Amino acid sequence: MPYLRNAWYCCAYSNEVDRKPLGRILLDQPVVVFRKTDGGVAALSDVCPHRFAPLHQGKLENEILSCPYHGLGFDSAGACVHNPNGDGRIPPRSSIRTYPVVERQGVVWIWMGDCDVADWSSIVDLELLGGDDGPRVSGYIRMDADYRLIIDNLLDLNHAPYLHPGTLSPEGATREARFERGVQTAASHYLMRSVPTPASQRLWFEDPVGDYHVSMEWIAPSVLRQSIAMTGEGNAREGGAMMKGVHLLTPESATSTHYFWAASRNRRVEDKDLDQKFRTFVEQAFLNEDGPMIKACQRNMAGREFSDLKPLFLDTDVAAGHARVTLEKMIAAESERQNT
Amino acid sequence: MPYLRNAWYCCAYSNEVDRKPLGRILLDQPVVVFRKTDGGVAALSDVCPHRFAPLHQGKLENEILSCPYHGLGFDSAGACVHNPNGDGRIPPRSSIRTYPVVERQGVVWIWMGDCDVADWSSIVDLELLGGDDGPRVSGYIRMDADYRLIIDNLLDLNHAPYLHPGTLSPEGATREARFERGVQTAASHYLMRSVPTPASQRLWFEDPVGDYHVSMEWIAPSVLRQSIAMTGEGNAREGGAMMKGVHLLTPESATSTHYFWAASRNRRVEDKDLDQKFRTFVEQAFLNEDGPMIKACQRNMAGREFSDLKPLFLDTDVAAGHARVTLEKMIAAESERQNT
Amino acid sequence: MPYLRNAWYCCAYSNEVDRKPLGRILLDQPVVVFRKTDGGVAALSDVCPHRFAPLHQGKLENEILSCPYHGLGFDSAGACVHNPNGDGRIPPRSSIRTYPVVERQGVVWIWMGDCDVADWSSIVDLELLGGDDGPRVSGYIRMDADYRLIIDNLLDLNHAPYLHPGTLSPEGATREARFERGVQTAASHYLMRSVPTPASQRLWFEDPVGDYHVSMEWIAPSVLRQSIAMTGEGNAREGGAMMKGVHLLTPESATSTHYFWAASRNRRVEDKDLDQKFRTFVEQAFLNEDGPMIKACQRNMAGREFSDLKPLFLDTDVAAGHARVTLEKMIAAESERQNT
Repeated sequence: MPYLRNAWYCCAYSNEVDRKPLGRILLDQPVVVFRKTDGGVAALSDVCPHRFAPLHQGKLENEILSCPYHGLGFDSAGACVHNPNGDGRIPPRSSIRTYPVVERQGVVWIWMGDCDVADWSSIVDLELLGGDDGPRVSGYIRMDADYRLIIDNLLDLNHAPYLHPGTLSPEGATREARFERGVQTAASHYLMRSVPTPASQRLWFEDPVGDYHVSMEWIAPSVLRQSIAMTGEGNAREGGAMMKGVHLLTPESATSTHYFWAASRNRRVEDKDLDQKFRTFVEQAFLNEDGPMIKACQRNMAGREFSDLKPLFLDTDVAAGHARVTLEKMIAAESERQNT
Repeated sequence: MPYLRNAWYCCAYSNEVDRKPLGRILLDQPVVVFRKTDGGVAALSDVCPHRFAPLHQGKLENEILSCPYHGLGFDSAGACVHNPNGDGRIPPRSSIRTYPVVERQGVVWIWMGDCDVADWSSIVDLELLGGDDGPRVSGYIRMDADYRLIIDNLLDLNHAPYLHPGTLSPEGATREARFERGVQTAASHYLMRSVPTPASQRLWFEDPVGDYHVSMEWIAPSVLRQSIAMTGEGNAREGGAMMKGVHLLTPESATSTHYFWAASRNRRVEDKDLDQKFRTFVEQAFLNEDGPMIKACQRNMAGREFSDLKPLFLDTDVAAGHARVTLEKMIAAESERQNT
Repeated sequence: MPYLRNAWYCCAYSNEVDRKPLGRILLDQPVVVFRKTDGGVAALSDVCPHRFAPLHQGKLENEILSCPYHGLGFDSAGACVHNPNGDGRIPPRSSIRTYPVVERQGVVWIWMGDCDVADWSSIVDLELLGGDDGPRVSGYIRMDADYRLIIDNLLDLNHAPYLHPGTLSPEGATREARFERGVQTAASHYLMRSVPTPASQRLWFEDPVGDYHVSMEWIAPSVLRQSIAMTGEGNAREGGAMMKGVHLLTPESATSTHYFWAASRNRRVEDKDLDQKFRTFVEQAFLNEDGPMIKACQRNMAGREFSDLKPLFLDTDVAAGHARVTLEKMIAAESERQNT
């Protein structure tokens, strides 16, 4: 499947990466990441060029990662620097691919395309509350679904009353919606006035009724920033109970996605029990409500392309539709550049 | 895989269809069926045209089936009549495919092809005993096998002494066989004289020895009517203990089949215990004797077409061979009509 | 996948073959083997030509194997000699393929190609210790891996310190290696001087330190003979504790292999407990150490051909590389002969 390669993707959370090498398939490519002795993160091809063994199963000593099969050692720049076989000569053309990585706000970002055009300034600010070190809840799910179907799901929150009634979605709400289309962004904004506080908000908002503001912003290729505010009726969004979250979707393959999510809030910030309750809420929604529906849609698509199926376009698909088209154009442009 | 589409297939038993929508894949197409408020049966595409969600997971209220993902509502004629998203306008070209259905003799028949040529008179009379409401035993098995291999199995009952010795097949029997080839039918008739009553017949025929008559008739594309009579030696078939059954095979995919079966009899008709014993007999035969053999044959075919494998033709394959050839010609003719 | 067909492969151990027919897929072809009344072994296609049923599920009476589905009987020369269906006439062109088999040294060898060129003199002498009937340990594993990856593994024992540290490989050893390239053979020879006796050798060699000699010889297409000697430091190989083994790899499919292995020794030859301990050693190595690594490499190859991936060639790959190239040339030559 064609992916947008010249882009930053979430490879792992910072706290997942240590001296034990971690193997993950990203955009169909096996990648190994580990923490160097200087604390920085290295990302290499997870395929030994000799017999294609998975390097993440090997030993890491100082900066050298050794193949678990025949012991070839690679440094964090991808150079083969140790050959315990035969006379020990380093064979020519034995280096492996490395990937640029940047660690920021608790996320290890990886650039899957042409290193020469890797642009660190384009890494998305997660805009979580409480600063980079603030308490927050995060999680990881490997979902057997095309990442674009998950973007569709997130950008069209009209599904909430059907999949998450009462829990994430207020009962009987009327949605005032507004959509934005940017150059490489899209956003959906919803306001539900004077609604019963949904169960997810009752965790930190005590009034039984209020105004419920939800925004979801997509930034190409697959980062989504979410903002939820619950306020007293008619009050300004700013003074409300805020939740800011991110959804970082990294394609593993055409039909599977690494789904990283994180959330922060401005009420009862230090409450660890609340963290746990909120995590349960989110995972229940992803695993038992959104996940099965997205996978059922994918089954009905039977391997065919979304656009070939000529899907019905609703007014409420402005953001999701714009994200689809934008992503498709970016991938086509990248592919064209490579061929010229 | 090419199927004969202009034909009636068993979609479900009447007693499977109620107000809870039932999703089933028929001829590679997802279909949802449910009972309307007037008692009739509706069959629609089980794929929402918006995001391809399975409609059978949605809510049915009065005549409106709502998509479980974003709530689009479809009436039983396939028209989108409700859009809870945005301004509620019904989008153009939003209707979904419906399938003609006819309910007859406890079976919901569905027409999978061109509606304009759906011919209700061509629905097969099941010819079960006891009329349409008479007591009978029925069952459903989803079998991981090409439906044509199941037709082969049913039309060539010479397999019975090998797969069903003593149970469905009398021990040591000599088979007198006669075959019929019709325009869109084929039949096998067997007579075994003065044989020990097989276990399946001992359920209602008390003599230890008798004449055993078995007929199996195929009607294109995949309905089979079976008739079994056990009589005193030399007696006429008509006065015997009769069992009339049907095998309704609806392809799910190239390698899986919805196998519906039903049976009726003229002895101990009201005996519910006997119903249960007979059901056990049949299911044991299908699941443990025929099923594994058919699947083993399919494995050995390794995805290749039956005719490409140049199978050996035996005298006893007249009916099965005729069914194969007839079906192939009908599918080719239908495909030709569509292309002109 | 193209295989070398004009070659002898291990089909089964002699002690696996008796009057109960054994079905095995070899080089993508279903084969049934059984022992004839005269004690010889017959190998036939395991596919009935009528409906493709697996013959190994049928009954064997005297020399006749009957199809489990409709009872066609085949003799051990592949001729259809019994038809219980209809008038009993034997249909023309009803014989099935037979495969030349030779039983030698406890192995049933099968020729998968053109019978006319089957050359019995080319069957490999296993060269096990103790003669053909000597005590030895043997085993069978079905491994989900391309047989060529297993050959690579066996011909490059530099993997031993990584996958089998301390057990099969002496700790801290320096390997003196020598490789041989023959017309249809390749071999790797290793000598490790003054090394701690590895656990596998401690089973029968009592000195804590010694010289460790290991040889592995490949004979096309997929027989490997192994020889291990542990001697006192500086002593000649001949007087040492010897283990001679074989690895007989028969492809089942492009991604699965029948892996037969056997071993013999010159110390504590009659010790059955030792047999069992040694078997545990070998199976632990294959199943838990080599197997998972080979399968991981295969996953990383993602269905692509080895040579297309341009693997790094190390000095120590001389034997494995020669085997790869030799096998490829033999297969190409065989395919060319068939096309002319």
